[in-house]
Amino acid sequence: MKKILKAVLPAGFKANGVACGLKRSGKLDLALIYSEFLAVACAKFTTNSIIAAPLILCKKHLRSAKRFQAVLVNSGNANCFTGKAGIRDASECARVVARELKIAKNSVLVNSTGIIGKRLEVARIKQAIPGLVSGLSSAGIHKAKRAIMTTDTFSKEVTVSLKIGARTVHICGIAKGAGMIAPDMATMLCFIMTDADISKAALNRALTCSVENSFNCITVDGCMSTNDTVAVLANAAAGNQVITGGKTLRDFSNALASVCLELAKMVVKDAEGATKFIRIDVFGARDQGEAKVVALSIANSVLFKAAVFGENPNFGRVAQAVGASGIDIKESQLKIKLGPLKGKQVKLKVDLSRGKAKATVFTSDLTPEYIKINAEYN
Amino acid sequence: MKKILKAVLPAGFKANGVACGLKRSGKLDLALIYSEFLAVACAKFTTNSIIAAPLILCKKHLRSAKRFQAVLVNSGNANCFTGKAGIRDASECARVVARELKIAKNSVLVNSTGIIGKRLEVARIKQAIPGLVSGLSSAGIHKAKRAIMTTDTFSKEVTVSLKIGARTVHICGIAKGAGMIAPDMATMLCFIMTDADISKAALNRALTCSVENSFNCITVDGCMSTNDTVAVLANAAAGNQVITGGKTLRDFSNALASVCLELAKMVVKDAEGATKFIRIDVFGARDQGEAKVVALSIANSVLFKAAVFGENPNFGRVAQAVGASGIDIKESQLKIKLGPLKGKQVKLKVDLSRGKAKATVFTSDLTPEYIKINAEYN
Repeated sequence: MKKILKAVLPAGFKANGVACGLKRSGKLDLALIYSEFLAVACAKFTTNSIIAAPLILCKKHLRSAKRFQAVLVNSGNANCFTGKAGIRDASECARVVARELKIAKNSVLVNSTGIIGKRLEVARIKQAIPGLVSGLSSAGIHKAKRAIMTTDTFSKEVTVSLKIGARTVHICGIAKGAGMIAPDMATMLCFIMTDADISKAALNRALTCSVENSFNCITVDGCMSTNDTVAVLANAAAGNQVITGGKTLRDFSNALASVCLELAKMVVKDAEGATKFIRIDVFGARDQGEAKVVALSIANSVLFKAAVFGENPNFGRVAQAVGASGIDIKESQLKIKLGPLKGKQVKLKVDLSRGKAKATVFTSDLTPEYIKINAEYN
Repeated sequence: MKKILKAVLPAGFKANGVACGLKRSGKLDLALIYSEFLAVACAKFTTNSIIAAPLILCKKHLRSAKRFQAVLVNSGNANCFTGKAGIRDASECARVVARELKIAKNSVLVNSTGIIGKRLEVARIKQAIPGLVSGLSSAGIHKAKRAIMTTDTFSKEVTVSLKIGARTVHICGIAKGAGMIAPDMATMLCFIMTDADISKAALNRALTCSVENSFNCITVDGCMSTNDTVAVLANAAAGNQVITGGKTLRDFSNALASVCLELAKMVVKDAEGATKFIRIDVFGARDQGEAKVVALSIANSVLFKAAVFGENPNFGRVAQAVGASGIDIKESQLKIKLGPLKGKQVKLKVDLSRGKAKATVFTSDLTPEYIKINAEYN
């Protein structure tokens, strides 16, 4: 498996990004990803019960269609908490993209990120779509990756390649953050394109496992977004023997997991106001679920995160967060090892001494700058 | 019912506070509350599974004894995460207090607040106990209330009186905060003294209900402490007909609830770095538990609290927190009303439109100052 920290579109994919006027700054705010070939698609969405309109539409398309060819994403507006009008707006965007690309409407996925509770300016989007489509190209992914950014300070992109039989398969992912930080303006979105030939069932298994061990293992402020989406399109352009299980699925899953983990770490590194990247390893748990609950309880502790910002080796705050996680642990079982706090990377190891399971979670410190950014945003 | 925001000890109670040297600042750090008469006692403790040594001892005494006469509390050290040695230390303190007061050892309750993970300097405490006992007086409550403070900027005290039959009964409470903020240095403790004659079962019912609607309805940073304690002693000195149920219990419960709620609000108002006191009312829930889960989800949202600090009327952050609370609510059901943000008091009303139950929760905003305080503490 080869990995580069750049976006290189797999065979059969094109992309583009334009500024349609949703962002007052005039920056790129509308992205399109297109597959020349019919692709299978899987997606994971936020579990927040208030979910954004485009996600509702995506779920409908994923149920009704078998193949997909396009993903339209705008930044600057989340199209969330916008009622039935919001769903009509998302649907209208999908319709115009389908018309311009001459593809089926339910083969288009849509997504949005930005402020919650404001109607989407559909007219601006519709007006920009013809130009967005006519400008599609392989290199256009570099515009697309910037058009999905909101408070991100750098673009998040990775491409891996691996052999499936005699063929080389590529997986390219782009994402925006900044984690679950500021979900009303900076939702986590990730789009993955691959030229692998893979069954939908196999792709879903690979994606479920990859997301569980990457995006579901990061937290910035514990705030769950209304728009979180990870979607993958596989268009079979690599011509490999179709992946349905066995070793080829394991290889593909590992590569997909690597893409997701790399992007998830970038999201944490770009967390608003953060000065530290914190890795938390919890060992000795009864099962992986327990290990993860404990790791997330520490990672979401405002006090722990403030202590790390202050380079304050306060292991009492770790003990407090472990005890508050809801697991019934005895003081004598708990071993805490907090690494040096001076650098940009901080490592915490927690041993629960009651089993063999483990989990790893990534988070950032909590800083006065984070509060300022989120207090002052309008 | 009459209420004053001062501590006035009920009949039969004395108290004192001294500086025994646990606080490097030389401030008061050891408090004693004493009842001349045998009192019934009830207490509620943290549900963190890592609990401090004195709480373990208290639980043992509350199981083994029927009547209580003293509460010893130190600040400057939480005696938590200190293993069996910590329990021996707490026990030794109780033994010396009992010897000096000539009362049974298991009639003494003990508590501690301060840093986690350091052995208690028992020698300092033991040396101070004779003077602490000889100086007991009614007015000594004003030293006791200060001796339990850590990062508190003001003492928290309230006294109510009410008629039970022909007799006047008094309930006096003192507390320290600052909420669940900084539980490794500033645990929430509350001690309530009453001269009411009340059965233990009735007292326990009154306390359970009072705590549920006061201390369990406040949050500062969502961090659950290892030392949280609310304890009440009732010594029957008022000579009322014993309260066991019916109207007199309802009246007493209301008065006790009023004491707890007043102290709980003071704890939130004194939260580290806070500039706003936020009241969150959730209406239209299926049951009270659901209303409280939603209210606490909002109250613990770092993003919502940062928005309030910035006087930023961002109702999308409220919707996000409601949806993330785990209840299955539809967007169309949710009504949010956020009051003016300019003043010191902020009111938020959330209607879930699916039932008749409601809950109220109090919290503070989250500020850069909070992060600084907790980053810099050593």
